[in-house]
Amino acid sequence: MESTDPVDMDEIPATPPDLIIEGGVALTMAQDPGLIEHARIFISGGQITDIQSAQTPSPLSNPETEVIDARDSIILPGLINCHTHTAMTLFRGLADDLPLKTWLFERIFPAEREFLDPETVYYGALLGCMEMIASGTTCFADGYFFQDETVRAAHETGLRGLIAQGVIDLPAPGVPDPAENLSRGREFIERWLHFSPRIRPGLFCHSPITCSEETLIRSMEISQGHHLPLQIHLSETAEEIQAILNKSGMRPAQYLDQLGLLNPGLIAAHALHLDEKEMDLIRERGVNLVHVPESNMKLASGTGPVSRMLRRGVNIGLGTDGACSNNDLDLFCEMDTAAKLAKAVEHDPTSLSAGEALHMATVGGASALGLQDYIGTLERGKRADIITVDLTQPHLCPLHNPVSTLVYAANGGDVKDVIVDGIVLMKNRKFTMLDPDPVMAKMREMAKRIAP
Amino acid sequence: MESTDPVDMDEIPATPPDLIIEGGVALTMAQDPGLIEHARIFISGGQITDIQSAQTPSPLSNPETEVIDARDSIILPGLINCHTHTAMTLFRGLADDLPLKTWLFERIFPAEREFLDPETVYYGALLGCMEMIASGTTCFADGYFFQDETVRAAHETGLRGLIAQGVIDLPAPGVPDPAENLSRGREFIERWLHFSPRIRPGLFCHSPITCSEETLIRSMEISQGHHLPLQIHLSETAEEIQAILNKSGMRPAQYLDQLGLLNPGLIAAHALHLDEKEMDLIRERGVNLVHVPESNMKLASGTGPVSRMLRRGVNIGLGTDGACSNNDLDLFCEMDTAAKLAKAVEHDPTSLSAGEALHMATVGGASALGLQDYIGTLERGKRADIITVDLTQPHLCPLHNPVSTLVYAANGGDVKDVIVDGIVLMKNRKFTMLDPDPVMAKMREMAKRIAP
Repeated sequence: MESTDPVDMDEIPATPPDLIIEGGVALTMAQDPGLIEHARIFISGGQITDIQSAQTPSPLSNPETEVIDARDSIILPGLINCHTHTAMTLFRGLADDLPLKTWLFERIFPAEREFLDPETVYYGALLGCMEMIASGTTCFADGYFFQDETVRAAHETGLRGLIAQGVIDLPAPGVPDPAENLSRGREFIERWLHFSPRIRPGLFCHSPITCSEETLIRSMEISQGHHLPLQIHLSETAEEIQAILNKSGMRPAQYLDQLGLLNPGLIAAHALHLDEKEMDLIRERGVNLVHVPESNMKLASGTGPVSRMLRRGVNIGLGTDGACSNNDLDLFCEMDTAAKLAKAVEHDPTSLSAGEALHMATVGGASALGLQDYIGTLERGKRADIITVDLTQPHLCPLHNPVSTLVYAANGGDVKDVIVDGIVLMKNRKFTMLDPDPVMAKMREMAKRIAP
Repeated sequence: MESTDPVDMDEIPATPPDLIIEGGVALTMAQDPGLIEHARIFISGGQITDIQSAQTPSPLSNPETEVIDARDSIILPGLINCHTHTAMTLFRGLADDLPLKTWLFERIFPAEREFLDPETVYYGALLGCMEMIASGTTCFADGYFFQDETVRAAHETGLRGLIAQGVIDLPAPGVPDPAENLSRGREFIERWLHFSPRIRPGLFCHSPITCSEETLIRSMEISQGHHLPLQIHLSETAEEIQAILNKSGMRPAQYLDQLGLLNPGLIAAHALHLDEKEMDLIRERGVNLVHVPESNMKLASGTGPVSRMLRRGVNIGLGTDGACSNNDLDLFCEMDTAAKLAKAVEHDPTSLSAGEALHMATVGGASALGLQDYIGTLERGKRADIITVDLTQPHLCPLHNPVSTLVYAANGGDVKDVIVDGIVLMKNRKFTMLDPDPVMAKMREMAKRIAP
């Protein structure tokens, strides 16, 4: 991202646009929701150069300008998936409805040990990237192994990503000797740091119980040394709390704070079982949380104090988790579930409004990943990560409230066009960069090996 | 339905099929899930005449036979929406994230009073029927007002429906004088009883608190007199329990039992706040319940003892409720939410499996509506209510487990073909009976009046 510093608005070049999106209702999210009727968005060099409201067709200033027809559409910032393990599409539907320990230790970990290699991770990540594009995600934060392959998949599909090498003090796919986990992570970062403005590498500590104090501290040091965020699973299960209590006499957030990990560069996913002190600590230290409601529900991990954290002023992004525990990477469904789940568990229909859910999936996500100067809203000077949602379908009609429609009625399949960094990755639901059919064919072939 | 009695299997005519669906993985749901690879389903006169497993293309016995290509698809029974108010698509997104009383008394009821008339209900129901077809629902149970129009919409779109006239002891849309509610209901039934084998009329008592004892008893008598089920909202809010306790000293299920309403002809939606005695009573009396998880969550009404009722052997169907409290009519999303919500609230990832969710949306729904001899499974002799789900999409790949894929990864937009009573209503995602565009145009025009 270092090559695309936030731009002084006065310096935006007055070049003709290479892409125009026009005709629909835009939710810029610059305010909540920042609604612009009959929007016309100008893009040049991957950057949003102007946003207008106009009812007449624009006279094209350049015959080569590409135009996205967004009449009968909602235009909004691309959604940001702040927590996933993209290549786990490999195991979608392999194991469901099982006790957590059976699921993890008898099904998922063995499948990972046996089947993960550069090729399977590449195809799993490629399929996951395509799924995210097809459902309106333009940026994702990923933590897994063999991550060179996830970088490759993100690059080839055109997605923006914060892609982190997994760090765990156990033998791991591609890193059989845990003593090498940090050096391998550091090499991964160095390899990809200057590769592409759309790819940011990083580290992903598996959890406070599977990483030692030393590993946690060193991971944060390496991340900070490169001005990169560190990802972690935090407070996902009741067992984790007990293990950290037994080990340190502290609850997980206090334990991480004592190690110096609680700071604005930490992205903590799940964060379900927090007491009041931990919530205060997370707010004071500026830690970013990622809410992962569907995975939390499916694994019965907990529901999390999301509304209470939002009211405290904690920044929260939204994530799908991997396809094994969801089982899709659709952030539209995740927004819907987040809003409904909060109402159900708090017995309050005003909890977590549609607007708050959409904010988490855009503005909140951008801030969580440290990319708030580049993405998350539609504003002059930001990178052009933009999606359109097709309203010409019975379930999205009538349009009394665009935010409500997006959160409570739309799903990923309603996304029509997807633009990342000014490049059109999907137009009228057709991928422009890659053909998904051979990828799916390859995946089906690999699936036969995984579950004969 | 009286013209299509369940057929003696030996009497199925050996006529050439007028429709063949072939090539995909079929989940017949005759067993759970009753998987048939390379299925070929023969349909004649609206009835399933044979189901085979065959890898070679079938030699057509009749050049006029229509063939649905279901390679790369899952073939399954059409889903059954056991509780909705279809015409409420009119108010989709009009009011969300509000306290229940504000939502109902200040927004929805006034909107209904002001805007419901035969024309708005017709277009609202037409749009809702199209939405249900487009998301794989082939049969729905509806309770509302101006129901002649919902019958008209179901008939024109080709859906199967149990369509009930609302009965409430308050002035209601189209029935300003509550003294006429039962006579109007009876007339409605008589008007439509012999109209079409796909339409079954009925009554829908609004709730135990908005209907008097006399109204409840008479509604059941009228329904039983025509061998029709009676629909009701039961135990949706804590306030309802208290009101019935105050009035009768009993909880709602006991109260209804004392009035003679608890029997296999009762379809009770929501059923959230049941104590052990009520659950036993519901099982003993053979009452059918409808689980409506997304609406219950969005309105923070409660979560309901669904798994416990299933374990007791109570039959449960699945419903979406109206588009005001969901805000879509997509049963695929509802299955996903039902399975995940049960796990979350019971802290048990084995609660309500994908298979149980799919069973509720098919077999359970058919039994709830008293249509188990006609629909709910793919079996020789049943009516041909069948859908296909297109697997050639990244989020439905790979296919380790078809049931898991349908429940946890698919949504309504993935439905490719929809057949009701042997008639193809949607083919390759195109409606065959009606053009949705003028319906949506009309709805958008009416929406401007509703929320200027």
